[in-house]
Amino acid sequence: MEESGNHSGRAGELTRYLSKYIELSEELERALSERMFIREYPKGTILLKRGQPCNECYFILEGLVRTYYFKNDEEVTTDFHLEEQVVSPSCYGTGEPSELYLECLETTVAVVGTPDMETELYAKYPQLEKLSRVMGEKIMAGYKDRFDGFKMSSPEQRYLALVKNENALVQRVPQYQLASYLGIKPESLSRIRKRISKKG
Amino acid sequence: MEESGNHSGRAGELTRYLSKYIELSEELERALSERMFIREYPKGTILLKRGQPCNECYFILEGLVRTYYFKNDEEVTTDFHLEEQVVSPSCYGTGEPSELYLECLETTVAVVGTPDMETELYAKYPQLEKLSRVMGEKIMAGYKDRFDGFKMSSPEQRYLALVKNENALVQRVPQYQLASYLGIKPESLSRIRKRISKKG
Repeated sequence: MEESGNHSGRAGELTRYLSKYIELSEELERALSERMFIREYPKGTILLKRGQPCNECYFILEGLVRTYYFKNDEEVTTDFHLEEQVVSPSCYGTGEPSELYLECLETTVAVVGTPDMETELYAKYPQLEKLSRVMGEKIMAGYKDRFDGFKMSSPEQRYLALVKNENALVQRVPQYQLASYLGIKPESLSRIRKRISKKG
Repeated sequence: MEESGNHSGRAGELTRYLSKYIELSEELERALSERMFIREYPKGTILLKRGQPCNECYFILEGLVRTYYFKNDEEVTTDFHLEEQVVSPSCYGTGEPSELYLECLETTVAVVGTPDMETELYAKYPQLEKLSRVMGEKIMAGYKDRFDGFKMSSPEQRYLALVKNENALVQRVPQYQLASYLGIKPESLSRIRKRISKKG
């Protein structure tokens, strides 16, 4: 694991991203840039295992993180997280053991947050509350649309939506994981892809 | 639609609920109690239709609201909202036309929020930012667990989880809507219920 030194130039990426939501005060921007831990994780790193408490959340600057579970002995992939996305499992900061695994599918560079750091920053910079609230509302809205969309659509529709909206993901992820994410068997995904390529 | 007058005694229910998340300042508590609109909607009221912009969100004091879509000519139920839950579609406050319908399945008493009211309250009472952030994190975590659970489980497992965790919902909702919510046909839900009652 590489420490923050080599990536300090990237701190600006996070503050630029955050500035899309609200105008950051100079003070908060400086605090974030100075206090931020940026780490690089080699491909294949397991960031979190089932049974462990989750004491870190991540903002991805580069790379790809997968969320998966074991159901009996089989992996079930429930989510992928790309650049400019937040990885924050539901057990983050609660002390509860995780049900899920987090794996870096590619070399991943991320800003790392911890509950202690958050508590301190929220106390010092109340503007951060607004930022988190506004970002949270946006992320929540996207999440609702995805969950409703998942319930509304067939596997083929889900795949087509993914190709349309998140083609980078389709290109970067192994097929068997993509199938699992779509809620189908790898063979079914192959059939869907063949059917579509014939139509196309 | 009944206006707030008759329900003003219920304002305390919201502030008591909010106090579970953070300690409210007296000033904020008073502002919320005074400014809050509480309305009663008869059973069957459609709070939002497809194509309409969504300019209201709700905190349910009593009753039950269903979220559904039309897929071709068929209703698909994606969510139910009970007492102490927030109903806030992803298009709330965006000006975008809604994709979904909101229907009161029972007589529903709710605190009604609007984007203008929120903007004003956030500006006046910064503590509200923290409250919304903390509540939002909790709601988001629950939502993630539900979405992952949905992907992980069979329809029978989903039904059993619902009976265990939200039995009130199972009792209060028509079977065909419950089936749709679980992602199955009404006949499949009947079969699952028969199978379970034989086992039981």
